[in-house]
Amino acid sequence: MINKLSGWDDTIVALATAPGLGAIAVIRLSGARSFEIINNLFPSKDLSRQASHTIHVGLLSDNGNPLDEVVVSLFKGPKSYTGEDVVEISCHGSPFIQQRIIQACVGKGARLARAGEFTQRAFLKGKLDLAQAEAVADLIASNTEASQKTALHNIRGGFSKQLSHMREQLIQFAALIELELDFAEEDVAFADRQKFYDLISEIETSAGKLIASFQLGNVIKHGVSVAIIGKPNAGKSTLLNTLLNENRAIVSDIAGTTRDTIEETININGIIFRLIDTAGIRAHSTDVIENIGIEKSIEKMKSADVVIYIFDVNEMSTEELRAVKENFHANNIDFMLVGNKIDHADMNAIHEKFSAHALEMIGESNPVHFISAKGDSGIDELKEMLFEKTVHGQPSSEDVIVSNARHLEALKNLESSIKAVKAGLDAKISGDLLAPDIRGALYYLGEITGEVTNEDKLDYIFSKFCIGK
Amino acid sequence: MINKLSGWDDTIVALATAPGLGAIAVIRLSGARSFEIINNLFPSKDLSRQASHTIHVGLLSDNGNPLDEVVVSLFKGPKSYTGEDVVEISCHGSPFIQQRIIQACVGKGARLARAGEFTQRAFLKGKLDLAQAEAVADLIASNTEASQKTALHNIRGGFSKQLSHMREQLIQFAALIELELDFAEEDVAFADRQKFYDLISEIETSAGKLIASFQLGNVIKHGVSVAIIGKPNAGKSTLLNTLLNENRAIVSDIAGTTRDTIEETININGIIFRLIDTAGIRAHSTDVIENIGIEKSIEKMKSADVVIYIFDVNEMSTEELRAVKENFHANNIDFMLVGNKIDHADMNAIHEKFSAHALEMIGESNPVHFISAKGDSGIDELKEMLFEKTVHGQPSSEDVIVSNARHLEALKNLESSIKAVKAGLDAKISGDLLAPDIRGALYYLGEITGEVTNEDKLDYIFSKFCIGK
Repeated sequence: MINKLSGWDDTIVALATAPGLGAIAVIRLSGARSFEIINNLFPSKDLSRQASHTIHVGLLSDNGNPLDEVVVSLFKGPKSYTGEDVVEISCHGSPFIQQRIIQACVGKGARLARAGEFTQRAFLKGKLDLAQAEAVADLIASNTEASQKTALHNIRGGFSKQLSHMREQLIQFAALIELELDFAEEDVAFADRQKFYDLISEIETSAGKLIASFQLGNVIKHGVSVAIIGKPNAGKSTLLNTLLNENRAIVSDIAGTTRDTIEETININGIIFRLIDTAGIRAHSTDVIENIGIEKSIEKMKSADVVIYIFDVNEMSTEELRAVKENFHANNIDFMLVGNKIDHADMNAIHEKFSAHALEMIGESNPVHFISAKGDSGIDELKEMLFEKTVHGQPSSEDVIVSNARHLEALKNLESSIKAVKAGLDAKISGDLLAPDIRGALYYLGEITGEVTNEDKLDYIFSKFCIGK
Repeated sequence: MINKLSGWDDTIVALATAPGLGAIAVIRLSGARSFEIINNLFPSKDLSRQASHTIHVGLLSDNGNPLDEVVVSLFKGPKSYTGEDVVEISCHGSPFIQQRIIQACVGKGARLARAGEFTQRAFLKGKLDLAQAEAVADLIASNTEASQKTALHNIRGGFSKQLSHMREQLIQFAALIELELDFAEEDVAFADRQKFYDLISEIETSAGKLIASFQLGNVIKHGVSVAIIGKPNAGKSTLLNTLLNENRAIVSDIAGTTRDTIEETININGIIFRLIDTAGIRAHSTDVIENIGIEKSIEKMKSADVVIYIFDVNEMSTEELRAVKENFHANNIDFMLVGNKIDHADMNAIHEKFSAHALEMIGESNPVHFISAKGDSGIDELKEMLFEKTVHGQPSSEDVIVSNARHLEALKNLESSIKAVKAGLDAKISGDLLAPDIRGALYYLGEITGEVTNEDKLDYIFSKFCIGK
């Protein structure tokens, strides 16, 4: 009954390729009636009698009205993306034709697919677990080698395999506890709890590693936001351009990247750094120190992962710099100090003025990094510093990296349950009293893979996907 | 050698679907090395040993570096779009992944395809003639049922068939002339030239019909541009909204249509009418009569196929209207007069003031059409009038419709040659003197189908296509 209500028995249709005009477009049908519907629109051949994974060229027509010359690909369930019968229609890429074909499919009994419904069906048919399904959306949204690699690894079951291993360990642990209880009745010698302890510690370590990977996973997925601020003429624009120009060649050859994005993101070691437009801050400020008190500017700086405060080494006094830093600290803003225009400076005097020692004297351990934005000196080092300050780990690592906040939450709950089990072991409490926390741990693992996730939550998760996937 | 220089022996690669993010994207390879290249990227199976028109699922990887889980479709030449070996890679629709796969194909020896190069190869391999190839671009750009139908009919060879028939008739005509020449030597009785005359007249009629269809073909392809002008408060915006609202439901469900386009086009009987933004005109004018003299406004109105001049029937005098009309006539602008706000008017008095008779009295046969833009009365009739004034023919006709300016030019040249041949027949000149014009006629036919078109011109024609087609 639940299936009927949710429309899982319907045959669904959607545009699977990017909207807009292209040479070709692909429209995808999935469900029990896919072959019946395509047969109604493709008069030249009975496609239901053709083998799976074959391709057929012909005229698509709706009640004798020619729609397009198309290429039809057939996938018979369960050997298909969704596990159901799937038909893909590759048509000429006019949005008008795309729409007409979709409407013709609807006319023959298909229903427009909801966002993510193809992948949701694949999940419901057991083709993918929930963590893999979510990685599909991540892969589609991936924009760097690191995000692509992480998502692809997860689609291929890298994360799921690790979760499944942890699940086996938990079940093994539960079995040992049960065994202990059985023998406890017979009053035999108490089992060696060290074995239990080792097993649960191993699970705890795995969970801890996955939780720790989230900081990296998050920057891989969402990038790092950087606000560059400073007084007028400190060299903000020059620094921005120097940072961007070096990377423009790498970024600009990615088709579909909008110009806006090109101009404001750089890729450092595979991580996207978004350079936040601080025009809003600049407009208000002739003097950042005064204006740092302005609510709006602070909010903007707080929304960044890190603020680069750039200043002209020839103009800035240590006292002024101290005031700036105190404001950052007072507002709990993570910042880097960048002294610009060293090409015009007497470096001995500058180093003395802004040396780590001098800064410590004024209560600061954050050292000043010196650059010439114009002369391009100190820029590579600045990028490395920016990377190290904000990215904890190597995006090229082969380890499983968690990048989904929902997974992080479940893993944290899992860790709490495991810690409670460990505390119970420490307190030498009876096995039957450990059971609720073991069940809790299994529940949180199942939440990630979708085994115990309720339908509303599933609908919510898949609604974040794009239509056609 | 020419092939080498033009790169026709290369294997080419391009994104075939619309750029940007989608659930999936399709990358297309064509050329002799397509299967070798995909084999280098698809380690799990030797795809060159698989049957044509089959589909294979697996991991794409570049030198061991996983790229994506993909679906590969195989088309072995000549049974493919281009006639060459073609491979289509259906990948996850991230622009980053699309780009990485294209780059991996380039790394294995493919070259980025030029705009229209797949279709140009199909033409060079004889899969399509030039008129059919051009219809592919028209089909991709089609945005109404009429433009889709016309283009699809031409891809399927409707136009080509007619051209081929004309070509046969011309060759038959040439053969008859030659026969006459052969016998002329022997001084037998002069052949009956009426037969020649009938044949050439038939070709002339066909060419004439095709030329005449261009007005319709052109509006089917490019739509009709309409400028709505009038004094402030005449009801321009209300009319625009009334026209748009009725059609918004039809237009807005076409995915990929931009909001700008939605707001400014309406579909009347299958033809797109573009309502030109006359804000520029409005900004200058508190009084259109005075401002009609302004160069810029006139240019804007002239660039429209027709101008709707809307006025408040309660405010406009016949003298004022005459002045407006004289300005339109003087500037050679095609216009329609629309009297608005009849819901507030005494219609007897209005009809008397603006009756056809009264208008003729002031030198005008263009009748005023009365509407209430607000009350939605007279709007359907206005749309019909607009259609009849600007569209000559029925877009739903089954006849071949010429919509390509290049074809029109060739057809006009063909018609001139035919007329010259007819004039020769009238003047009873000798058959050998008719030969140059017959050859001319055949040449112009061949220009349309691409048989005699030189490479530069072909390159130019295909460069108007999108990349990936």
